[in-house]
Amino acid sequence: MVAHPWKARVINTSGTEIADVVVTPVAFREPPLLNVAGVHQPWALRAIVEVRTTSGLTGLGETYGDAPHVALVRRAAATLTGLDAFDLHGLNARIAHAVDGVDLADRHGLTGRSTPSKTLLRVLAAFETACLDLQGQAVDRPVVDLLGGRARDAVPFSAYLFYKWASHPGGEPDEWGAALDPDAIVTQARRMIDQYGFRSIKLKGGVRPPAEEVDAIRALRVAFPEHGLRLDPNCAWAPDTAVGVATELADVLEYLEDPTSSIAGMAEVASRAPIPLATNMCVVALDDVRPAFTADAVQVVLADHHYWGGLRRSLDLAAVCAAWGVGVSMHSNSHLGISLAAMTHLAAAAPQLTYAADTHTPWRGDADVVQDPLSIVDGAVEVPHRPGLGVTLDRDALARMRDDYVRCGITERDDTGYLRTIDPAWEPRQPRW
Amino acid sequence: MVAHPWKARVINTSGTEIADVVVTPVAFREPPLLNVAGVHQPWALRAIVEVRTTSGLTGLGETYGDAPHVALVRRAAATLTGLDAFDLHGLNARIAHAVDGVDLADRHGLTGRSTPSKTLLRVLAAFETACLDLQGQAVDRPVVDLLGGRARDAVPFSAYLFYKWASHPGGEPDEWGAALDPDAIVTQARRMIDQYGFRSIKLKGGVRPPAEEVDAIRALRVAFPEHGLRLDPNCAWAPDTAVGVATELADVLEYLEDPTSSIAGMAEVASRAPIPLATNMCVVALDDVRPAFTADAVQVVLADHHYWGGLRRSLDLAAVCAAWGVGVSMHSNSHLGISLAAMTHLAAAAPQLTYAADTHTPWRGDADVVQDPLSIVDGAVEVPHRPGLGVTLDRDALARMRDDYVRCGITERDDTGYLRTIDPAWEPRQPRW
Ligand SMILES: [Mg+2]
Ligand SMILES: [Mg+2]
Repeated sequence: MVAHPWKARVINTSGTEIADVVVTPVAFREPPLLNVAGVHQPWALRAIVEVRTTSGLTGLGETYGDAPHVALVRRAAATLTGLDAFDLHGLNARIAHAVDGVDLADRHGLTGRSTPSKTLLRVLAAFETACLDLQGQAVDRPVVDLLGGRARDAVPFSAYLFYKWASHPGGEPDEWGAALDPDAIVTQARRMIDQYGFRSIKLKGGVRPPAEEVDAIRALRVAFPEHGLRLDPNCAWAPDTAVGVATELADVLEYLEDPTSSIAGMAEVASRAPIPLATNMCVVALDDVRPAFTADAVQVVLADHHYWGGLRRSLDLAAVCAAWGVGVSMHSNSHLGISLAAMTHLAAAAPQLTYAADTHTPWRGDADVVQDPLSIVDGAVEVPHRPGLGVTLDRDALARMRDDYVRCGITERDDTGYLRTIDPAWEPRQPRW
Repeated sequence: MVAHPWKARVINTSGTEIADVVVTPVAFREPPLLNVAGVHQPWALRAIVEVRTTSGLTGLGETYGDAPHVALVRRAAATLTGLDAFDLHGLNARIAHAVDGVDLADRHGLTGRSTPSKTLLRVLAAFETACLDLQGQAVDRPVVDLLGGRARDAVPFSAYLFYKWASHPGGEPDEWGAALDPDAIVTQARRMIDQYGFRSIKLKGGVRPPAEEVDAIRALRVAFPEHGLRLDPNCAWAPDTAVGVATELADVLEYLEDPTSSIAGMAEVASRAPIPLATNMCVVALDDVRPAFTADAVQVVLADHHYWGGLRRSLDLAAVCAAWGVGVSMHSNSHLGISLAAMTHLAAAAPQLTYAADTHTPWRGDADVVQDPLSIVDGAVEVPHRPGLGVTLDRDALARMRDDYVRCGITERDDTGYLRTIDPAWEPRQPRW
């Protein structure tokens, strides 16, 4: 493109000029939920981003709480003064400059490979969401309206089941109890569905031998004959194992999520499996789209605005999937009420998102940083009509949870390291079966 | 997805509830511009859409003026009362219901095949643009801010050259004169560039034998050594001819646009051509994306919000192209100042749109329906900072141009039929060479 000698920008920033940003890491208690990488630590980490305008508005974002990520988010936050909250391209430019090619990997590896561009998008996402919250507040419209309007009035979520221990080692039993066999998984599902009304069920697999996880899905089907069912072993299986499970559960599953690792592995399984494969591990950035779609490796992509760069870029991903005839679902990590609101606005704006979204909401009980959390009723969250994201900070809770972050002593999510403190011989093999 | 017994919508529609819609077909004079389908008639047709809110705002859209299309737009317009201008999914639903599977083809065929879904998107686009104009006015923000903010402050356009006659048969010569050989094309380019400062040049081809069009491009390169150059014969050539031209002009062209017809034909040419191929004829709807991209048929897609369903869906297209590593440019038909504003906001919001956009603006002289047209300076349009699209209707001009629509007697664009009134033996063959 040709260069243009254009005059300096004169943007209307009334009400939306960023004054400063506060980033607060927080921690909340988590049950010992098992996955292929290990087990959830007793505390889950998040970071709360408050983007404040000169006019006194506060836009909220929520992101990962791992210390290296928080440091990067803070480095970016310091560069945003004076930016207009509507200037999302300017936001991206400033953050790219601040992040400057850093590549931060997760220790748990549950959201796929890391790259510098994915690291940038993870940092960007927290601020993009906060800027959309500011935009909505400034113009007195819910965020969904700024994303093209609501394609649905309520967003269905799924019951996210986990194999789990009764308690953290040395701790008190939690209210959910142990779940290490099909009966206990059904009990967990019943309890969660009684409380929230979910109409879809996702089982986090990759924990028990595949035959046992097949039995658990079969037991769920018997107990919940009308519910959508999914199984996600986080790449725990070799391709042949994955094809075997897909074949056995062909009459039961909506989709099988990340049964094996890599685009090539998923493509091999997909070519032999009678049901759709879904992923949030082999398609985690735009660069993955062309190779994965060309290879027909996946039939459903789970979007996650926390690492796809925010709500708008997640809508771009949904459009890309739609153009290719690939379905869209939504991924979740442990999160608080700001993320639940952001996920709800995003899903409401995406007609392509036809699967119930994942959420860890039930696992955190009442812990939250917002005063007015959205609630899951009949398995769905009503899309807010309040301006912006529609949630406001509970500053007392924020202060408590910030103290918990400091006190808990955990600075990075490390499911593997935590399991090894209990079973030093444990190895996170991939594939395990 | 599961069904949800959700309560009726309670949307904040303060200021943006649609009261009624007025659709006004208009006509303005056009020079005898030649293309593969024939020649432009003496009058170009458009329709102006005014979407009025109960609060007294008027949102503007501009679309095709062919009578069957105008009738369909009016049928849809009558169903929009009570809709919130932010409810773009509701807009789509109402329009889909009104259009009800109708399939309207163009007589000129210059924007590819028609389908019911493409017909729907052409109707939708006029209203979507008007609703975005309303949204911006209601919240005191330019449309580009509602599309994610400005990726650029000015949008470059290209000098759109045509072979042409000196006058319509029986008419007075126009100010541009005849252009039927390379020297005259260079003269036309120089005049247009002197006036508007364009830094890219597009020649509408498919009119003269390919060797002559190659000579014209070579002459333009000599006269404008720094300008981007493109050639668009609208599928006039057989694949071998297209490969020949692409090879001859490999050192000169930014891209070669629709040299041959169909995805298969373009794929064949692309596999043998040393330069990128662009299209606004074989990728004209989302259904075309997967087959065209899989076949590597095109390296650049020209978006056109008038038939891609509006500005937001055009941004979706840009995202799809970016995910695939396919470039994005912008197509133009004869248009007025509302469309120029819409094209400018769209291009400003699309970082992927790295080519100068096409526009017919110079060919209509001062004819316009807006009081405050955006102007092309140094080859680019500064992105407005006014709320909404940033243009307002000139009601006197609208009335005059509506009368011209009635008086001119043309009800459908028909370049072929018009040329046949002059040369009854003329046949629009494809391929011609
Ligand atoms: Mg997963
Ligand atoms: Mg073209």
